[in-house]
Amino acid sequence: MEIKNVTVAGGGVLGSQIAFQSAYSGYNVTIWLRSEGSIGRCKPKIDYLRETYLKTLDAMKTDPRAYAYGLMAQEDVTPESCEAAKAKVEAAYKNLKLTTDWDEAFGDADFVIEAVAESVEQKVAFYEELAKHLPEKTLVVTNSSTLLPSQFAEATGRPAKYGALHFANEIWSHPTAEVMRHAGTSDETFETTIAFASSIRMIPLRVNKEQPGYLLNSMLVPFLNAAEALWANEVGDPIDIDRAWTLGTGAPAGPFRILDIVGLTTAYNIGIMDPRSKDPSTVQYRIVSRLKEKIDKGELGLNAGKGFYDYGKK
Amino acid sequence: MEIKNVTVAGGGVLGSQIAFQSAYSGYNVTIWLRSEGSIGRCKPKIDYLRETYLKTLDAMKTDPRAYAYGLMAQEDVTPESCEAAKAKVEAAYKNLKLTTDWDEAFGDADFVIEAVAESVEQKVAFYEELAKHLPEKTLVVTNSSTLLPSQFAEATGRPAKYGALHFANEIWSHPTAEVMRHAGTSDETFETTIAFASSIRMIPLRVNKEQPGYLLNSMLVPFLNAAEALWANEVGDPIDIDRAWTLGTGAPAGPFRILDIVGLTTAYNIGIMDPRSKDPSTVQYRIVSRLKEKIDKGELGLNAGKGFYDYGKK
Repeated sequence: MEIKNVTVAGGGVLGSQIAFQSAYSGYNVTIWLRSEGSIGRCKPKIDYLRETYLKTLDAMKTDPRAYAYGLMAQEDVTPESCEAAKAKVEAAYKNLKLTTDWDEAFGDADFVIEAVAESVEQKVAFYEELAKHLPEKTLVVTNSSTLLPSQFAEATGRPAKYGALHFANEIWSHPTAEVMRHAGTSDETFETTIAFASSIRMIPLRVNKEQPGYLLNSMLVPFLNAAEALWANEVGDPIDIDRAWTLGTGAPAGPFRILDIVGLTTAYNIGIMDPRSKDPSTVQYRIVSRLKEKIDKGELGLNAGKGFYDYGKK
Repeated sequence: MEIKNVTVAGGGVLGSQIAFQSAYSGYNVTIWLRSEGSIGRCKPKIDYLRETYLKTLDAMKTDPRAYAYGLMAQEDVTPESCEAAKAKVEAAYKNLKLTTDWDEAFGDADFVIEAVAESVEQKVAFYEELAKHLPEKTLVVTNSSTLLPSQFAEATGRPAKYGALHFANEIWSHPTAEVMRHAGTSDETFETTIAFASSIRMIPLRVNKEQPGYLLNSMLVPFLNAAEALWANEVGDPIDIDRAWTLGTGAPAGPFRILDIVGLTTAYNIGIMDPRSKDPSTVQYRIVSRLKEKIDKGELGLNAGKGFYDYGKK
């Protein structure tokens, strides 16, 4: 099927990025928002994205390190092509529609990307209302990081035309698109979603079965947990553990550097989801206890100026 | 304590590298070998190391990518200093002693690095005989990757003067030295081992408690296992899983690229150590079964020309 009209439901950090990148790639894009208040909060995000895309394209004219995959193919970068791409940014900015009206947003949508709050209740309510406004043709995907599409397939009323499409933050320069099917997703929906991801200059990664955490987090979580266990058991300190990883694998960052970027609060919230974290005899308990100590001291990670490393006062 | 005389027990791949690097760093180094046959097998390894060190130093004169941390500090690299270091290589090669004589090897040793076969029986027998020939002053460390120093502390007859010092392969360019104590290792032994590691231009990483796998493998094994589970459960294919990791973390290699380097036989041998690998209902079983299929086809990894990736016929 041909996709022309894309609607993103939700205008948060990711929702606005997905919408802007899709508009930059030539789709007719609408952002559906729950309220006028949400529209007010979304607009500055779109302004910021316009500015970021324009600045990045200007920087790309002379600085190879500024290259962002989502903006164009590396071999196409020239001062002229960057200047031309800036016109695409302005067109995207001008054409992007924001609305709270269900029929306006969804009545003729070909592809809907749901990026509403990570709450089962809110998503179910959204999908049930959505079903009343969508034409039969429309494919729907969720960008949820932590919830599974099978939890919502029935609520959409179109399980075969429903799946997941998961983005990383700052999608113009981190172009992974994990495309995941649930048991009822049709091949056509899966393949169309993969093609759509490519068409907005993302690198699609096929997740052929439902998997909590998709591909990346399915590896990142046990890896970070193993590193946290070494620290919580006082086997090694974060600097040495990171060095073991970077020297041993050539990676640019070790687990504690990654935890500082992810944020210790997120690490703590993932940790307490493990029931063993309630039992003082386990290493999971020691991990969340030591994370909590650091959080209580305000050592939340890179954004706070201090986490496992000291980044200087913010 | 001052270390002058270093004896490496065992002349395998790692033993010969540790001995050569220690001799290059100015120590009086002896390699103890079990038999004349072992001496015959060790000598070509030493010849190869001499050649490799000389070639690397020549390359370093003009090519920054040739830099090897173990040979000198990066800021000291000049054509003249590289030429001067070649004299150190020749001196190391000339002075290195190989012997099967216990008293000659150990009678005045300050520091012994045990790098004999990874067998509990062989190591116990070695340590019991060693104890009869060592002066009281000598510190002893094991380079074992998979066995723990507490398993041998008693057999050495000097538990407080015993610990572990674990190297990576090609130590002149992969300079990690994981220094691990068992519960009875004295502070002095631990700190002296760390200082010794630094003195042969390794980067010492402190492992403050006994930990199977030290720091690096304690993270690498669960990380690789998580990736293997995604593959064995048919959630994703190796290429997409690797891409998720390299795009998501900036690492130069994903888990299946690393498995190809490590070798699938090693991955399989680690896999079957897990008792769940015997139970067909588990993912561990599926992982070792699928590894076995590839091994049976000769797809053993990089060295075989094919593993998860195709490297062209060897």
